[in-house]
Amino acid sequence: MRGIRRNPGHSRMTDVAARAGVSLATVSRALRGSPEVSAETRSRVLEAATSLSYVVSPAASRLASGRTATVGVVVPFITRWFFAEVVAGLEKGLHQAGMDVLLYNLGDADGRSRFFDRMPLRRRVDAVVILSLALDGCELDLVTGLGVPVVCVGMQVPGCSSVGIDDIDAARRAVRHLIELGHERIGMLRGAVEPNLGFTVPLDRHEGYLAAMAEAGLDTAGLTASTPWGPDGGAHAMTELLALPQPPTAVFAESDEMAIGALRTLRRAGLRVPEQMSVIGFDDHDMADLLDLTTVWQGVHQQGATAAEMVLSGLAHPDAPPRRVLLPTRLIVRQTTAPPRISARPSLNVPA
Amino acid sequence: MRGIRRNPGHSRMTDVAARAGVSLATVSRALRGSPEVSAETRSRVLEAATSLSYVVSPAASRLASGRTATVGVVVPFITRWFFAEVVAGLEKGLHQAGMDVLLYNLGDADGRSRFFDRMPLRRRVDAVVILSLALDGCELDLVTGLGVPVVCVGMQVPGCSSVGIDDIDAARRAVRHLIELGHERIGMLRGAVEPNLGFTVPLDRHEGYLAAMAEAGLDTAGLTASTPWGPDGGAHAMTELLALPQPPTAVFAESDEMAIGALRTLRRAGLRVPEQMSVIGFDDHDMADLLDLTTVWQGVHQQGATAAEMVLSGLAHPDAPPRRVLLPTRLIVRQTTAPPRISARPSLNVPA
Repeated sequence: MRGIRRNPGHSRMTDVAARAGVSLATVSRALRGSPEVSAETRSRVLEAATSLSYVVSPAASRLASGRTATVGVVVPFITRWFFAEVVAGLEKGLHQAGMDVLLYNLGDADGRSRFFDRMPLRRRVDAVVILSLALDGCELDLVTGLGVPVVCVGMQVPGCSSVGIDDIDAARRAVRHLIELGHERIGMLRGAVEPNLGFTVPLDRHEGYLAAMAEAGLDTAGLTASTPWGPDGGAHAMTELLALPQPPTAVFAESDEMAIGALRTLRRAGLRVPEQMSVIGFDDHDMADLLDLTTVWQGVHQQGATAAEMVLSGLAHPDAPPRRVLLPTRLIVRQTTAPPRISARPSLNVPA
Repeated sequence: MRGIRRNPGHSRMTDVAARAGVSLATVSRALRGSPEVSAETRSRVLEAATSLSYVVSPAASRLASGRTATVGVVVPFITRWFFAEVVAGLEKGLHQAGMDVLLYNLGDADGRSRFFDRMPLRRRVDAVVILSLALDGCELDLVTGLGVPVVCVGMQVPGCSSVGIDDIDAARRAVRHLIELGHERIGMLRGAVEPNLGFTVPLDRHEGYLAAMAEAGLDTAGLTASTPWGPDGGAHAMTELLALPQPPTAVFAESDEMAIGALRTLRRAGLRVPEQMSVIGFDDHDMADLLDLTTVWQGVHQQGATAAEMVLSGLAHPDAPPRRVLLPTRLIVRQTTAPPRISARPSLNVPA
């Protein structure tokens, strides 16, 4: 029943009854999952309802299917733009199909171990969506042990469908943009990988940076600054690179949030962007356009929507093989990148 | 059992058994809610466990209490910084008490009517937390009809505990800051109230603006620009005010997101902040510090934490009268506000 779309005013219970060749009362009983209705009749009614896009109430659907009509969604940090956007896209697709979302926000390594310790999703959900967590063997066993379809966003689990982007390729493209502008000393502002959270995205984006630099025969030694993820981290990482004997002329930030922090450092240091420093981010965060930040766009909402679709098809076709969907990314050139100007190399006077 | 804090390694089942004067097996049975244990013994065990901060598994707690150990949280927009932050604070407090969160993100007026139409929280939660929605009579009946404690953040419901800030007073303070700097023509960038979502915060912040201006005997006619909420809305509202025959010298934005949009308009128009235009926001969004934005801070995480505490005490003491907690706000002066400079009045050349 989950696949039935809400299509108000489109068809009615009487149409379902007529199509299935039963009484209205039988339709009602069948949709409620009443034992008075034979399995054969019930399946006939459900088929008629499906073909007519009949809108059943989720409560009826739940009773009829014996399921929870709820999807558990596990996110590392709901306060980060990326995760909130994915969840919004996911919820939209699931709500339209009459399914509810039970959201788990891990928050930190403690939250993560508490979650896997307790597995509060057990017997409460029909499917699980996991965002951006590389699972260890034990965690993997716990999740697959739930016995429901698992869909991954931004990471992969053997045997499960997943959606994401090619982070290595997208990061490589960002750095190539700087190389094509003529930059040779290009730094990377990197979020230190949170201990025990096992994100693979930071690793992939760094790999893309290294690959693009290697392809162009450019040196990367000492040009990566790792700080805690986020705007403040980006600000500190930028300060670190400015303090080098020979600072870079351009930087690639792992995420737009880190790029935005870097812009603050540059503003406070009195350095002009892009004249004295080019900055490129990653994600196309809401704020990127507002700050005229050059970045790599990814379809965040679309990843959520695709995951919702994978959940629904996983429930409809439990035996279908897992799918891996890679969504495209796109370079968005705004005002923070330009060719290097030899005369405008950053000064060595760095703010404290 | 919900009030028991996780305190790993602090006390053990044997201590509980000793204190309650029963066997280990009885403790286990009592915590599982087994009918083999008398009500008197069970309450003795629970008391001992509570006093020793014994960590029961949520599953055991659920069985023992006959409850879901789940709190339903209803938010209008999970993608907005404010709501995500409140949810993070709320979840932290509830998770520590062994409770899970079932999150409902309404998203828009359609999502709202679907939610109240279906009431998917029914029989699934022990309590409900509602964020920033003014409920109409019918919605109110549906929520109170759930028969569980209801806690409100950023709005009030008769008979329910609530936490929030005094938006009128805080907005008045923001505008007074501009007045004290010597500004007389002060505009407001206002998010148009979403139809049917019934937010009261925009109304209150506008009222605070009008009150501060009236107290100082300043004119407000034509100085409020209303646009859809968000950075783009703020950008458009700023453009509107710049197009006035006599533009303001300072603006108060309903939220930092709108102020950030206004900063983009000013940057693109070539106007310097604060020399040619002072801008003050509201919220102390993560980005405010990065953009050196003067604003009014509110304890967003703290509102979530307070709501969690209200949920727990509402469950522990169902007959206690509802509480109303107003958390303090604070003016944070950064780099976007300064006295007006007569010579530096904004030009009338406004970007398209």
